[in-house]
Amino acid sequence: MARNTQVAADHHAPPVTTTLAAFVAGHPSRGWSDTVEHEAHRTFFNWLGCAIGAAQHESVRSALAAVQMLQPAPQATLLGRTERVDMASAALINGIASHTFDFDDTHLKTIIHPAGPVASAVLALAETQGCSGRQVIDALVLGIDVACRVGNAIYPDHYDRGWHITGSTGMLGAAAGCARLLGLDERATAMALGIAASQPVGLREQFGTMTKPFHPGAAARAGLMAALMARHGFTASARALEAPRGLMQTVSTKCDWREITHELGQRFEISFNTYKPFACGIVIHPSIDACIQLRRRGVTPEQVERIELKVHSLVLELTGKKEPADGLQGKFSVYHGCALGLIEGKAGEAEFSDAVVTRPDMVAMRRRVVATVDDAIHEAGADVTAILRDGRREHVSVVHAIGSLERPMSDDDLRAKFSDLVSPVLGTACVAPLVQAAYGLGQADSVRSLVQAARAA
Amino acid sequence: MARNTQVAADHHAPPVTTTLAAFVAGHPSRGWSDTVEHEAHRTFFNWLGCAIGAAQHESVRSALAAVQMLQPAPQATLLGRTERVDMASAALINGIASHTFDFDDTHLKTIIHPAGPVASAVLALAETQGCSGRQVIDALVLGIDVACRVGNAIYPDHYDRGWHITGSTGMLGAAAGCARLLGLDERATAMALGIAASQPVGLREQFGTMTKPFHPGAAARAGLMAALMARHGFTASARALEAPRGLMQTVSTKCDWREITHELGQRFEISFNTYKPFACGIVIHPSIDACIQLRRRGVTPEQVERIELKVHSLVLELTGKKEPADGLQGKFSVYHGCALGLIEGKAGEAEFSDAVVTRPDMVAMRRRVVATVDDAIHEAGADVTAILRDGRREHVSVVHAIGSLERPMSDDDLRAKFSDLVSPVLGTACVAPLVQAAYGLGQADSVRSLVQAARAA
Repeated sequence: MARNTQVAADHHAPPVTTTLAAFVAGHPSRGWSDTVEHEAHRTFFNWLGCAIGAAQHESVRSALAAVQMLQPAPQATLLGRTERVDMASAALINGIASHTFDFDDTHLKTIIHPAGPVASAVLALAETQGCSGRQVIDALVLGIDVACRVGNAIYPDHYDRGWHITGSTGMLGAAAGCARLLGLDERATAMALGIAASQPVGLREQFGTMTKPFHPGAAARAGLMAALMARHGFTASARALEAPRGLMQTVSTKCDWREITHELGQRFEISFNTYKPFACGIVIHPSIDACIQLRRRGVTPEQVERIELKVHSLVLELTGKKEPADGLQGKFSVYHGCALGLIEGKAGEAEFSDAVVTRPDMVAMRRRVVATVDDAIHEAGADVTAILRDGRREHVSVVHAIGSLERPMSDDDLRAKFSDLVSPVLGTACVAPLVQAAYGLGQADSVRSLVQAARAA
Repeated sequence: MARNTQVAADHHAPPVTTTLAAFVAGHPSRGWSDTVEHEAHRTFFNWLGCAIGAAQHESVRSALAAVQMLQPAPQATLLGRTERVDMASAALINGIASHTFDFDDTHLKTIIHPAGPVASAVLALAETQGCSGRQVIDALVLGIDVACRVGNAIYPDHYDRGWHITGSTGMLGAAAGCARLLGLDERATAMALGIAASQPVGLREQFGTMTKPFHPGAAARAGLMAALMARHGFTASARALEAPRGLMQTVSTKCDWREITHELGQRFEISFNTYKPFACGIVIHPSIDACIQLRRRGVTPEQVERIELKVHSLVLELTGKKEPADGLQGKFSVYHGCALGLIEGKAGEAEFSDAVVTRPDMVAMRRRVVATVDDAIHEAGADVTAILRDGRREHVSVVHAIGSLERPMSDDDLRAKFSDLVSPVLGTACVAPLVQAAYGLGQADSVRSLVQAARAA
């Protein structure tokens, strides 16, 4: 059958979602004819017969065997909380949590955040099965490789269409990682990928809502369940990714197959993973970085007469909010970013709280930042000059910001970020043992001591 | 950002799925450099901090509240089985079961099988919550309306791309039905649809595998969970369906918005639902129908010298298998269909068993069927002439087969089909009470007695 040509996006589409919602919520009970009513019973009745009739079929038995692995709940830990739930729900919830602050990792070539779907699935399964840390790390590397290689092959077309690529490739990574943990053979692993391929998760339209972090969580759950089903004999197409009506051709025009195989087993996509040092959009990072460098040179807030900031036009377009009123607006203010760099020397989630954004010294410092557009400066860079009250000028030019592939965060940087995130939840005393457990995971006999340490008291 | 143009399907794509599967299954543990190994720990570590840091966030709390509704398992019945599982898993498993025989319902305009995702979700939730039959029927009608209206708007483009439309609209129907059962208000219902919109399920490449019936099951589970999450305050875009990067524009070029609103609340898509009388592909149905009519006129297998069958070329292309070797091949043999019609007078799942397909009288009768192509006959019709041993000729022309919108199955037909499906699983004595419970559902105080009757002893 002929494929269709895409047309321009329709920006004037009517409010179909709310129209349907109002209809479903408001239409009166039995607000239709006897014929409709009767048809409803026929529909139900026919469906009931079909379901009962196939109750002993192999498809049902193998899917059920997977579901029964969820029981008895609780099985797996929710990180930083006291509750334990079934492992599929743990994959979901931990995946949601890990992407909630938009502070997780990024595979820059595809802008996939790969740990959300993969680690969430793998850890929940590993805890339940009592796997070693070694197995977890193996599964993580391989799972991320699968998600990012598929991402490489279909990015950017796939993303341009509207998919949130983290969730629409992540279920493959989660399935791959879990298949590996379960020790599935080649055929069963293909089935796990195949089952997962039918479940891409995530639309870019959801950005700004809770459903954005839901995407990696749901992808984790889908991949985990796909692997459990495959283990119990559930089947899928072994060409589920590449066939004309398989995942990749269905969700992307660009399918660069070579990205899947080139240097497979030699080049690992996890090598190109990056971590966010600052809990805000990436275009602000070079400006924050520059101001932290000024602070390290000894420039104090009291000395500063004025900050002259030169950035690419895109930076002000996206984050030009001069007077942010709360924490969320602060994330879209390069001015707030500069003030944080100078005053706090960091910009974690806590630095984008309402309290910090509205603090008088922050407001005053933001007002001393003068931003101008200079498109000679790259989007990923910033040029900052501090004009001090004594007339001195301190200049910093950032070409590659901290957290980029060229200037990765050091392990110390990562530990500091970790401590800022974890201390308010688990207490400061819990941080050091967790750091040790995480960095030593590849040698751990079991993941359970790490998971225990990550659980709230 | 500019949207891309679709190109022709690539039929020569390399075996990416099995390549990745072999890699994941076979690559040695720690088969990479120290740098990769270290990066793996950093990745894990960074992700862990992010997850713990957000553990008290509202997104996590509301999704968790939904997940906790699954516990303690078991909550809901698996139709025709003894096990009970959590309601989300029941939606999944019952959804898989109901589509396993490809014998369920069809909304012909979109070829959506709407009960699979919607009824599976609604019944599992209704049992858990103790809802009335009335509420279930309401939810079913409204849920199916949502799925089929969205289907109307995007069919056929969406299907042509490679989506199995039952699962890629069904999650919306399931979410709508469950939102209704939960009594969600307009805003929360929009959130349920929004959360569901991020989870279209199903690729046509999976046809012929267990993952095909997985699609309605997974859509049922996704929709049910979306509604539970929305009930607990989880948010999504209220334009998740129609926005440029919302579901419909992301998965289809054709978006005929009027299909959503035209006669909404007046015309119900469930009115256009149909049921399969025969457990095989629809192109064979007219030929089976014609042969059953010959049998009803008194034509016996012994009398038949030859059956002259005239059909559209498509029928022989798809189902021209002259000597089927087993049950599955029998489903692709119009010759077997004719033999069934004449000898058995029906063609349910049992009539496509290996035993029936290889029975000598069936083989002999199939060999007496002579099929010829006549494109003057519509794809949905058949022209059959029985040449009897005494020289008489009996002729039947079918324009609309039984089970079509023009010639729907009667309630008696449906009851006979139901009995054939249910008797082997629950026993003949269970059929009559279930028939009564299902047809009386709109008046039942609770769905629980029906569900109890549908459970294996």
